[in-house]
Amino acid sequence: MGDRAPQGGSARVSVGVIMGSQSDWPTMAHAVHILEEFGIAHEVQIVSAHRTPDRLIDYAKSAANRGLRAIVAGAGGAAHLPGMVASMTRVPVLGVPVQSAALSGVDSLYSIVQMPGGIPVATFAIGKAGATNAGLFAAALLAGDDADLATRLDAWRAAQTEGVAMIPVREG
Amino acid sequence: MGDRAPQGGSARVSVGVIMGSQSDWPTMAHAVHILEEFGIAHEVQIVSAHRTPDRLIDYAKSAANRGLRAIVAGAGGAAHLPGMVASMTRVPVLGVPVQSAALSGVDSLYSIVQMPGGIPVATFAIGKAGATNAGLFAAALLAGDDADLATRLDAWRAAQTEGVAMIPVREG
Amino acid sequence: MGDRAPQGGSARVSVGVIMGSQSDWPTMAHAVHILEEFGIAHEVQIVSAHRTPDRLIDYAKSAANRGLRAIVAGAGGAAHLPGMVASMTRVPVLGVPVQSAALSGVDSLYSIVQMPGGIPVATFAIGKAGATNAGLFAAALLAGDDADLATRLDAWRAAQTEGVAMIPVREG
Amino acid sequence: MGDRAPQGGSARVSVGVIMGSQSDWPTMAHAVHILEEFGIAHEVQIVSAHRTPDRLIDYAKSAANRGLRAIVAGAGGAAHLPGMVASMTRVPVLGVPVQSAALSGVDSLYSIVQMPGGIPVATFAIGKAGATNAGLFAAALLAGDDADLATRLDAWRAAQTEGVAMIPVREG
Amino acid sequence: MGDRAPQGGSARVSVGVIMGSQSDWPTMAHAVHILEEFGIAHEVQIVSAHRTPDRLIDYAKSAANRGLRAIVAGAGGAAHLPGMVASMTRVPVLGVPVQSAALSGVDSLYSIVQMPGGIPVATFAIGKAGATNAGLFAAALLAGDDADLATRLDAWRAAQTEGVAMIPVREG
Amino acid sequence: MGDRAPQGGSARVSVGVIMGSQSDWPTMAHAVHILEEFGIAHEVQIVSAHRTPDRLIDYAKSAANRGLRAIVAGAGGAAHLPGMVASMTRVPVLGVPVQSAALSGVDSLYSIVQMPGGIPVATFAIGKAGATNAGLFAAALLAGDDADLATRLDAWRAAQTEGVAMIPVREG
Amino acid sequence: MGDRAPQGGSARVSVGVIMGSQSDWPTMAHAVHILEEFGIAHEVQIVSAHRTPDRLIDYAKSAANRGLRAIVAGAGGAAHLPGMVASMTRVPVLGVPVQSAALSGVDSLYSIVQMPGGIPVATFAIGKAGATNAGLFAAALLAGDDADLATRLDAWRAAQTEGVAMIPVREG
Amino acid sequence: MGDRAPQGGSARVSVGVIMGSQSDWPTMAHAVHILEEFGIAHEVQIVSAHRTPDRLIDYAKSAANRGLRAIVAGAGGAAHLPGMVASMTRVPVLGVPVQSAALSGVDSLYSIVQMPGGIPVATFAIGKAGATNAGLFAAALLAGDDADLATRLDAWRAAQTEGVAMIPVREG
Repeated sequence: MGDRAPQGGSARVSVGVIMGSQSDWPTMAHAVHILEEFGIAHEVQIVSAHRTPDRLIDYAKSAANRGLRAIVAGAGGAAHLPGMVASMTRVPVLGVPVQSAALSGVDSLYSIVQMPGGIPVATFAIGKAGATNAGLFAAALLAGDDADLATRLDAWRAAQTEGVAMIPVREG
Repeated sequence: MGDRAPQGGSARVSVGVIMGSQSDWPTMAHAVHILEEFGIAHEVQIVSAHRTPDRLIDYAKSAANRGLRAIVAGAGGAAHLPGMVASMTRVPVLGVPVQSAALSGVDSLYSIVQMPGGIPVATFAIGKAGATNAGLFAAALLAGDDADLATRLDAWRAAQTEGVAMIPVREG
Repeated sequence: MGDRAPQGGSARVSVGVIMGSQSDWPTMAHAVHILEEFGIAHEVQIVSAHRTPDRLIDYAKSAANRGLRAIVAGAGGAAHLPGMVASMTRVPVLGVPVQSAALSGVDSLYSIVQMPGGIPVATFAIGKAGATNAGLFAAALLAGDDADLATRLDAWRAAQTEGVAMIPVREG
Repeated sequence: MGDRAPQGGSARVSVGVIMGSQSDWPTMAHAVHILEEFGIAHEVQIVSAHRTPDRLIDYAKSAANRGLRAIVAGAGGAAHLPGMVASMTRVPVLGVPVQSAALSGVDSLYSIVQMPGGIPVATFAIGKAGATNAGLFAAALLAGDDADLATRLDAWRAAQTEGVAMIPVREG
Repeated sequence: MGDRAPQGGSARVSVGVIMGSQSDWPTMAHAVHILEEFGIAHEVQIVSAHRTPDRLIDYAKSAANRGLRAIVAGAGGAAHLPGMVASMTRVPVLGVPVQSAALSGVDSLYSIVQMPGGIPVATFAIGKAGATNAGLFAAALLAGDDADLATRLDAWRAAQTEGVAMIPVREG
Repeated sequence: MGDRAPQGGSARVSVGVIMGSQSDWPTMAHAVHILEEFGIAHEVQIVSAHRTPDRLIDYAKSAANRGLRAIVAGAGGAAHLPGMVASMTRVPVLGVPVQSAALSGVDSLYSIVQMPGGIPVATFAIGKAGATNAGLFAAALLAGDDADLATRLDAWRAAQTEGVAMIPVREG
Repeated sequence: MGDRAPQGGSARVSVGVIMGSQSDWPTMAHAVHILEEFGIAHEVQIVSAHRTPDRLIDYAKSAANRGLRAIVAGAGGAAHLPGMVASMTRVPVLGVPVQSAALSGVDSLYSIVQMPGGIPVATFAIGKAGATNAGLFAAALLAGDDADLATRLDAWRAAQTEGVAMIPVREG
Repeated sequence: MGDRAPQGGSARVSVGVIMGSQSDWPTMAHAVHILEEFGIAHEVQIVSAHRTPDRLIDYAKSAANRGLRAIVAGAGGAAHLPGMVASMTRVPVLGVPVQSAALSGVDSLYSIVQMPGGIPVATFAIGKAGATNAGLFAAALLAGDDADLATRLDAWRAAQTEGVAMIPVREG
């Protein structure tokens, strides 16, 4: 599967970021940026549950053996990608509901989060915030047995706290 | 796949009825009853998108070659079954949103109907009415090149019309 | 009914595309484009359930005799067109909920999909995706007894699969 | 149409109460009770938009000539009855959304109230309250040129006001 | 109450159009335009249930004696105007839910339509379509004992039907 | 207005609890119980915005002069009571959305909370929790200039905290 | 906590206005403007429940001792700020749901208003109207033992009433 | 914190299961059962964000140092527990929206899933399915560096697949 693009250094890829179509990129980029910021080796790929089911099957079934520790999967509308990946791997799947045109992502959210008992998908907020948080959650998950990453995550969180101004600027 | 149970006579099976779990049976039975009423050869099977993905893949990929003319697929919650079957076959898929516990089937409906352009799933009402209508729609679809079935469908519809009383009974 | 415009060659019209008003055209055009792409003989017409009920009655009641194999019907808001056509013909009706101003098409969707048991309407996604898929579903339905069309539909689907890039472009 | 049952005395029928099925009776009975209470001559009938479209057409098109001053129409789910009657008569149509199983009548409400500009349907609350109020609204409409009815309606409203206790009973 | 502006000729005012604020005018104008088109004598006024409760009380309590046959009331958000007017007059109240910023008028709709049994408000669609239809409904109500208006309403409806093109223009 | 029942001792009544109908009592009782628990002098009354508008006007307009410091108002459906009281008094109004039959109180909530800028209604949760909290909020409001009440409120809150078990009982 | 900016004169600060992030300012400014208009001493601060939990704890726990009489708290999405402040102080908390990107503030509203019994948050409308009204409610609350403020509030309300034009301007 | 009950053997506790109140137990029990089934050392505790904020702070801030690898947090209504825990620890938080009385858990879901970018909460389905899946997700997360657990999780999933019958039982 040489078409995948390992990113974040020469380390073994530990996080996969997949999305249903090119149109999901502006949302899912926020997950990728977080992984880049933490130097977590990752790969990025388009996997459409509906238009490329064989690619989905191949991706999901090979995930554990390839050593992935988490898969961030974003999709919109009848968003079947995260759940179907989760049905074929024990690797934790982090689902990101992409905001949809008519229903603002409520359809995406329900399609991802309302999984039946037995096949979990960890779901995050609709849109950009959800993608950012899926990236951060992947980092937190990896930090469980990576003390260095844990330290960097703590620092990131502390910096975020520091970055909150005390008084709002009277603009807008 | 000898486990499938061809029903409705010795004719070649033309309609498959599948559902995500045993708990969907009370809903999906209404589709089966319609097929039985019209003597349409059919098969009934549990196919869980999430718990039996390989069964799903096998079912969907073999559907066209096995001569199926329509697949009625019912599921609830994050209802991925109809859409994932549709992603792997050109055979028309008729989706039935099963009423769910917390969200009353709105999650099922959105997960089934909001398919992206390219992979259609014909969606029917939440619950019993939807299952009945998926069965009737399968009959109407087959009636397109089966004049005898068309006649029987017309008769069924006429009888339904005749069966509507003129004056409501003052009860309840 | 010479006002209808048969399109897609000299073949007998097999699919009717109707819509409640001119304002539905930008959505319903996507169904028409699919029919054109597959060379399926079709006709396109405005039929308003509310403003032209007689046209609706005439259209629905003549559909079977005129040899239509499917009717794609799009409408928005209190979208009664698909259901009322379905009440007067056994020809399969494919409903497309057009996105509405205030309720984003949730009203259109509920008005189309929540049909009572007895009169089925096959419902597709809100807006463009739904119109595209109604066209594709009509093709799939006709492919049931048209091997050539089935082959072309398979090819269309394979091309769609091929067209999905492996890696997202980092834009937007 | 001798099957209709004029009720409320020998007077010419001025209000029609129609409903999509027998199952709507427990709701629509509340409209009938109000008409009975005011002695307004009325008729009660089942008219299913989907199962008896011809009865619908006949009912709607004859309404004005038969002298109806208002039509109370109740239906649930994809509730097309009020809107389709309104499309074929200028007689004021009062729509009552009947509570539905899965969606609690939100589908009924949207299907009735979201009519396009040009064909009005006066819509009331979901369920019993809506049926009661459709009956009262019919009375208020007729009271516009019936001073005696106006007086009785004022009395009814005054009695309703009088009937509201000052202090709640501490029960339940 | 000389501040009200009787419009539509020297005839006695038969329809009042009220709205909660100036911001409702672009919506409610569509009701006014219909009344103007039919030459129905009417008045237009801002009456805010919340900011001018005394004006509301005065308006509602004087409506019947001033000979109003219908009151069209538009409001958005927690839209109490139609219901509170209806609580103080037997004159039929036609409620128009104005589209709101955050909730797109769902709040307006629920606040207007979900009246308790005893005090009816005839509710129309959210926004422009609802305002247009409230005007048309007022005309239909008055046509009940005004044969000339009935004829003109029939003509208006026929013209509307005639105005629906047979074939959509391929634009947009 | 001797019909009101001052409760909670001989002190001047500082909180009024009103509700739209007897059927709201089981919900609103929870507000009353809190006031009783804190010994806050209060009165309880049925005031229906729709069925007793004059009682509403009288109640709201006299509230400030009678020395009320807060009015707890509960209503369901098109719940106009809290907002209309607020339109006629500067006394703080605490609105409680009562759970409704069809829409589970979403209609009540939107009708109460979505007030336009200028007339505030403090809104609490749907049903029992909201009524309890409206009572507690009234106590907190009065505690602002009543040190003894503040002390008792702090004690109540501390006891509530103490009452939370550390480990759940494995039942149910 | 010298970082807080007491505003509205040298008086002891009686109202705190806090918000989850700078992006909430354009909404919350409307609360501040009301406090400024009434000359109520207040402070304005960013307190993020999620990014600055310690600041939240410090703010909430010190509120009563610092003499705050009310805290206006605005937040969007999973809006935990008002409820968490309320969990740690008996000072009345007025919650403002800020309109969110995907869900238009329905998420903010539900997160703020649906507090469990025991910890009240007074909730106002989504967005600008809610912020304005939270400011007005704070004024009304303080007016309970401040006759001068009560007089000014009455005047403000009277001016608001006076400011409502009788006839809408025909524009837009 | 001796009150916590380490469960699942003498191993160091790696998963904490917390819930807002005793009433959440019937839901959260399903998470506990999964942890028991896999022999994962865990602790179970009631932590109310609103009634026991100090317990929440203590629990969250000590989680990382105590070696927790994941925290399963269930809550209903304005469900602030998962998000507030996440704001004070980098340990992955798995949120379970408990079904609520009025809004069926939609409020719980939105309050948990719509976290702002920066503080992730992995959210699962409303109710029992979500609790089961949070337990399974915790197992999957731990399996990332525990080959034995990975093997047992694979076996569990295979058994689940095996347990799906081929043909539905015709009952119900």
